[in-house]
Amino acid sequence: MTGPRYTPLVESLPATVPFVGPETQERAMGRAFRTRLGANESVFGPSPKVIAAMAEAASETWMYGDPENHDLRHALARHEGVAVENVIVGEGIDGLLGYLARMVTGADDRIVTSQGAYPTFNYHVVGFGGALDMVPYRDDHEDPQALLAKAREVDAKLIYFANPDNPMGSWHKRNVVEEMVQNVPDGTVLVLDEAYSQFMPPQDLPQIDANDRRVIRFRTFSKAYGMAGARVGYGIGHPDLITAFNKVRNHFGMSRVSQAGALAALDDAKYLADVVAQVRHAIDRIGEIAAKNGLLALPTATNFVAIDCGRDGDFARAVLNALVERGVFVRMPFVAPQDRCIRISAGRDGDLDIFAEALPEALKSARAGARRKLTWPLHIR
Amino acid sequence: MTGPRYTPLVESLPATVPFVGPETQERAMGRAFRTRLGANESVFGPSPKVIAAMAEAASETWMYGDPENHDLRHALARHEGVAVENVIVGEGIDGLLGYLARMVTGADDRIVTSQGAYPTFNYHVVGFGGALDMVPYRDDHEDPQALLAKAREVDAKLIYFANPDNPMGSWHKRNVVEEMVQNVPDGTVLVLDEAYSQFMPPQDLPQIDANDRRVIRFRTFSKAYGMAGARVGYGIGHPDLITAFNKVRNHFGMSRVSQAGALAALDDAKYLADVVAQVRHAIDRIGEIAAKNGLLALPTATNFVAIDCGRDGDFARAVLNALVERGVFVRMPFVAPQDRCIRISAGRDGDLDIFAEALPEALKSARAGARRKLTWPLHIR
Repeated sequence: MTGPRYTPLVESLPATVPFVGPETQERAMGRAFRTRLGANESVFGPSPKVIAAMAEAASETWMYGDPENHDLRHALARHEGVAVENVIVGEGIDGLLGYLARMVTGADDRIVTSQGAYPTFNYHVVGFGGALDMVPYRDDHEDPQALLAKAREVDAKLIYFANPDNPMGSWHKRNVVEEMVQNVPDGTVLVLDEAYSQFMPPQDLPQIDANDRRVIRFRTFSKAYGMAGARVGYGIGHPDLITAFNKVRNHFGMSRVSQAGALAALDDAKYLADVVAQVRHAIDRIGEIAAKNGLLALPTATNFVAIDCGRDGDFARAVLNALVERGVFVRMPFVAPQDRCIRISAGRDGDLDIFAEALPEALKSARAGARRKLTWPLHIR
Repeated sequence: MTGPRYTPLVESLPATVPFVGPETQERAMGRAFRTRLGANESVFGPSPKVIAAMAEAASETWMYGDPENHDLRHALARHEGVAVENVIVGEGIDGLLGYLARMVTGADDRIVTSQGAYPTFNYHVVGFGGALDMVPYRDDHEDPQALLAKAREVDAKLIYFANPDNPMGSWHKRNVVEEMVQNVPDGTVLVLDEAYSQFMPPQDLPQIDANDRRVIRFRTFSKAYGMAGARVGYGIGHPDLITAFNKVRNHFGMSRVSQAGALAALDDAKYLADVVAQVRHAIDRIGEIAAKNGLLALPTATNFVAIDCGRDGDFARAVLNALVERGVFVRMPFVAPQDRCIRISAGRDGDLDIFAEALPEALKSARAGARRKLTWPLHIR
């Protein structure tokens, strides 16, 4: 036999992708989306100062980025009110989740998450041979008590918990999360994904000692800062855990242009506040559009809204497909009963005009399809 | 016990970095380097068209990059005269080497490389539990026969072979490499690192069937294209191996700005040719500077030159340290006897003026230090 001999683990893995990109869908459709509201990107874009900093850094792209991310880590430490030893920077939260999964996960190690939570986390865990234990959402929220109980039961190495949650937009208030940290079992680390933290009501943000060994918080420049394409995320945790990333990370993995952009983003608090305000406006408008169509928009502390389409997952999928056909890129939860919803990212007025126009048609199409499905088996009987 | 429980493998790894970045040295020295000739970056920079494309893409950085790298893979396939199914794009060759190491390396799997070859490859292999088997260089060249023999002896899963070689700049001609491919043992893959391929005499580049299961070639935008900070590398290999990367890679790991830059770089063949010509000029000048100081510049097919300092590793390290003290960022081979050399990247005339000025002083300082070392023990006897 010639050629590669993969590890038994890699041999067993599917060649997969946690998400199909909108570009893939566009190529399949043969046309571009009219609006891009499916990946919780910030259509409001990054700060003009970020764009300027990245454009300027482009001419320096002949140099490798600083592998220590020194300046960015120091700026983040100041921004978060923690020590620089508490901060790790990486290639998006995705990259950091991959490193963390690798650091703790061996064959059949148990990792706890929620059914229908972040697929990329699951991808990394399975990719390192871990066994996922999933607990259901409770009333469209991740369920801290169930997550803790499951972690205790299976002696989990990690608990994944997104607050606010994606894909539902729901969130827990600070006392719930702070109490959750207090009850993390020995030998377990709570992976607190706070990708959407900037959209949370500030008083709801938990206070957590950065030196607490039981938790690592992840934040990102991909959402509120409008820099998804730059791949910059960071973790806040105990210095021992932060240092351990240096055992496995791709030290020269960060784009120099992205480092410059992230530094500029931190320096423009006013722009961030403006984006958060525009997102609130968009969230309200999505709620109005939903109501006008007889649908319920769920409460959210993110830059997206889960809209309950009022029936089952098949129906919501039909609505989603009809929106996609009409050039509206949206996504939806994978797992019942959350998959009764479609998920719409906050957009500019122009984006939401397109959505407002397409939604009634999509609902009509989905309802007609549902009728067809219902009547067709009756006919052949 | 609270906190993370690492895998036994990760527990055993040192928190390390394959290379100390020049920024780290600058912070330690408290001043900036006068010239940056240590990392084989291209001080000639990327094409103005690349800078323009990246600057323009900065405003689109709110969107994730296409996880399929569709456009770039198609452009690379055209550029390389292979099928798109033969091309994988990743976060620099470093990122791709990490994925490949992970795909084949389990506990104690054997991986063959040369003593003193690319440390980042070794970092990845050890990081996935592999055992490295190293063969020495032969006359400052990597030794294809010894690499093949060792691979056969230990039943290696990978052979790492850089052509041209880093850190020596030496290279093998096409028939040697083509014959090497023909003799790769069953079940072994030859990892052909061609980061410097654009600097090779074109007639020396091996012709290899992209569908040959025994080899994967890696190339990069970091060197001749002047985009080290953008983190874009690619692999060319059998479609089955290329597809297998999708089992483990960070699908959304590519910077959107970097994708745009790489596409623009491929479109500017004239700029690339200009850089190659400027590098040749610089290589000649580094040779003259070496000769003027009584030192020998080794032949090179890269954008750097190994200068034989004429004594042992301690002496070359003293020369290097003296250069660094004078604001000249350079590096050197790690392993004897190659560590008798220092390694200088091609620079603009202004960079090489600084080097030409600093080298005689550095040699003088190193010779004085060597004398001190020799006489001091005599004194205390």
